[in-house]
Amino acid sequence: MVDWQRLSDGERAMLERLFWSGGLSRGELASSVDFSKSKANLAISSLIARELIEEGGVQPSSGGRRAEVLRLSHRMGVLAGIDIGATSVDVALLAPDMTVLDHRSEPAEVRDGPAALFARVRDLLREARERCGIGAAQLLGIGVGVPGPVAFDSGMLVNPPLLPGWESFSIRDCLAEEYAAPVFVDNDVNIMALGTHWRLRGQLQNFLVIKIGTGIGCGIICHGMVYRGRDGSAGDVGHICVDPQGPICHCGNAGCVEAMAAGPAIARMAEAAARAGESPRLMELLKRNGALTTVDLGNASRAGDAAANAIVQQAGAHIGRMLAAVVNFFNPSHIFIGGGVARIGPLLLASIRQSVYQRSLALSTRHLNIQYVPEVESAGVIGAAVMAVQETMLAGAGRERNGRS
Amino acid sequence: MVDWQRLSDGERAMLERLFWSGGLSRGELASSVDFSKSKANLAISSLIARELIEEGGVQPSSGGRRAEVLRLSHRMGVLAGIDIGATSVDVALLAPDMTVLDHRSEPAEVRDGPAALFARVRDLLREARERCGIGAAQLLGIGVGVPGPVAFDSGMLVNPPLLPGWESFSIRDCLAEEYAAPVFVDNDVNIMALGTHWRLRGQLQNFLVIKIGTGIGCGIICHGMVYRGRDGSAGDVGHICVDPQGPICHCGNAGCVEAMAAGPAIARMAEAAARAGESPRLMELLKRNGALTTVDLGNASRAGDAAANAIVQQAGAHIGRMLAAVVNFFNPSHIFIGGGVARIGPLLLASIRQSVYQRSLALSTRHLNIQYVPEVESAGVIGAAVMAVQETMLAGAGRERNGRS
Repeated sequence: MVDWQRLSDGERAMLERLFWSGGLSRGELASSVDFSKSKANLAISSLIARELIEEGGVQPSSGGRRAEVLRLSHRMGVLAGIDIGATSVDVALLAPDMTVLDHRSEPAEVRDGPAALFARVRDLLREARERCGIGAAQLLGIGVGVPGPVAFDSGMLVNPPLLPGWESFSIRDCLAEEYAAPVFVDNDVNIMALGTHWRLRGQLQNFLVIKIGTGIGCGIICHGMVYRGRDGSAGDVGHICVDPQGPICHCGNAGCVEAMAAGPAIARMAEAAARAGESPRLMELLKRNGALTTVDLGNASRAGDAAANAIVQQAGAHIGRMLAAVVNFFNPSHIFIGGGVARIGPLLLASIRQSVYQRSLALSTRHLNIQYVPEVESAGVIGAAVMAVQETMLAGAGRERNGRS
Repeated sequence: MVDWQRLSDGERAMLERLFWSGGLSRGELASSVDFSKSKANLAISSLIARELIEEGGVQPSSGGRRAEVLRLSHRMGVLAGIDIGATSVDVALLAPDMTVLDHRSEPAEVRDGPAALFARVRDLLREARERCGIGAAQLLGIGVGVPGPVAFDSGMLVNPPLLPGWESFSIRDCLAEEYAAPVFVDNDVNIMALGTHWRLRGQLQNFLVIKIGTGIGCGIICHGMVYRGRDGSAGDVGHICVDPQGPICHCGNAGCVEAMAAGPAIARMAEAAARAGESPRLMELLKRNGALTTVDLGNASRAGDAAANAIVQQAGAHIGRMLAAVVNFFNPSHIFIGGGVARIGPLLLASIRQSVYQRSLALSTRHLNIQYVPEVESAGVIGAAVMAVQETMLAGAGRERNGRS
């Protein structure tokens, strides 16, 4: 395995430039670091000789790239990206330049507990390696996204409300039984933010990714890095109060945005509207199925159902009120909205926008862009693998950046 | 003048370590960068020969330091720190290691407009230079703190609510008539945060400084750097809504924390309590003076006046509710409370704390420390000078850190 600690700062900076740019010519790479031209060319030759970078054109998988473009070498090893959802698990192998070599997804239940789920993850990873002909020792790093709060340093889940039984389970130890590669675990929304950051080539320095599903969470990119806060709980925006007179949340406080605008709250409002006879369409669905989902509500809203529209707008207004506070504090350039509930209809995004622009200061929203997270194939596993690359080969740079003696 | 662009990354890293540490032995400095020992010692000798660093012991002003401790050289030049308050102006000259060489403070009215005020600032700066025997060319950089929002890149004020007439005035151009040194302007609370960061030797990476005065603002240190956001308006927390049913703020929205808990709101509540006969003490003061101030209210609260205490607690609860949202989002390690209104009594801090701990998630407050900003002499001018140092000699490092090609 490569010993990343033995890279010089300059070499690491070159690998970092290549990783974020997705490929550079020799000239571009040489001029991207603070080296003389001859020293830069020497360093490039040395990185090529050590099989850490390579010319992209020589690989058949690289498609239409110019032959002289350099990239992180596929011979260096592979990354594993694992994305655990509430009802699914995705396992992928990726080259260091984030080319997806193998990706499988299957249904899974996180409520069944972590031991069974990670036994299956290990099977899936083994099968992926066999298909690609990759030995366990070739793994450079493993990134894992989970749908709950994580203490990043230990890789352990902390008080996961939706994941009973996961708190005492060490994902790291479980995978260490089979792999020497380092394992990094983070929550799904930080992974989503990091993957978005990489897809945007690192060009946005300060932005947010909001995930609206069973809960509401936020991934923060600040100064071009994932920001996790003192205890790893930064971005826990679901429990920001948007109405002191609002309903009591499962956290014990009143009027949390999650209790008023996440999936379960929206389904509850839909059922109340159906029972009150405000929507014949929802009433009939409720009678037939015994319950309503956010998908039902989204369908009704898109079909022009007035009661459904009112609920979507109300949820958007609550989320927007929370975001207005966050925008006043953080002044991001972009907010990307994602998660299963985000797509219940265009009205949600419209009412989020309206509420944010109304409630935030003019200076903070002058250049603010609020849009859906771009839908990308394999986004979850790529985000997890980006984390693994950052924390292994680029970690020296990160530590340099954060640590001050 | 020193050409900072010609410093190598390694040399700049050494200057940065010295600046933040306040002084290091040769061995400590050599081991703080990613150099071989011989290369580090060569670089140190070169920096000494170029009069960028020096042995602290040879300077009579360095007091009890060990002779072998290195620091940024006093021969390099000086920094100017200028701190504009709503009713005062402070001008100081500082050595590159932030030793205050000269500091004068005098009353001033920002409402009289910027031209008159900065004519006086230039006089004060000239007088300070004369007292110290320092020529205009010896200024390395000028840092200016102002009590209003600033677009950091241009150094111009943006929509300053308390500073009519300042928006079209270029502080930078005004000082450039007399000085070649670069001028940096930021709002007072970012300056306060940066000064606090430097006094703490850069050891806290993620913390907030809250200033409670006529308005409520927040300085953000994130990843060890001042965070200003997309438009420089990050930390504008005064207009975060804490009660949708609250009073209308001058920004046009309802229930902004500034409209419910900053100085004017507190004074208004005190007068209402006096008029309602809830406090004989306040009633008599109001009769005598025709108005009440936050100082009056603070005195009454400290004397045990129940109505005054209730007002302080209510203001603290509102500020705490705003901070709870910020804590959920940002998960800082520390919140330092400062500003003229912060000291109206120990009850304010107590009720801020109570409100934050009650309304934030347990994980976010597990290690959260809320305390007053340490009172330090010359804090404002030192903060402004720290900014000038960062943006001149250490700027390459900062750009390196933030920029990604």
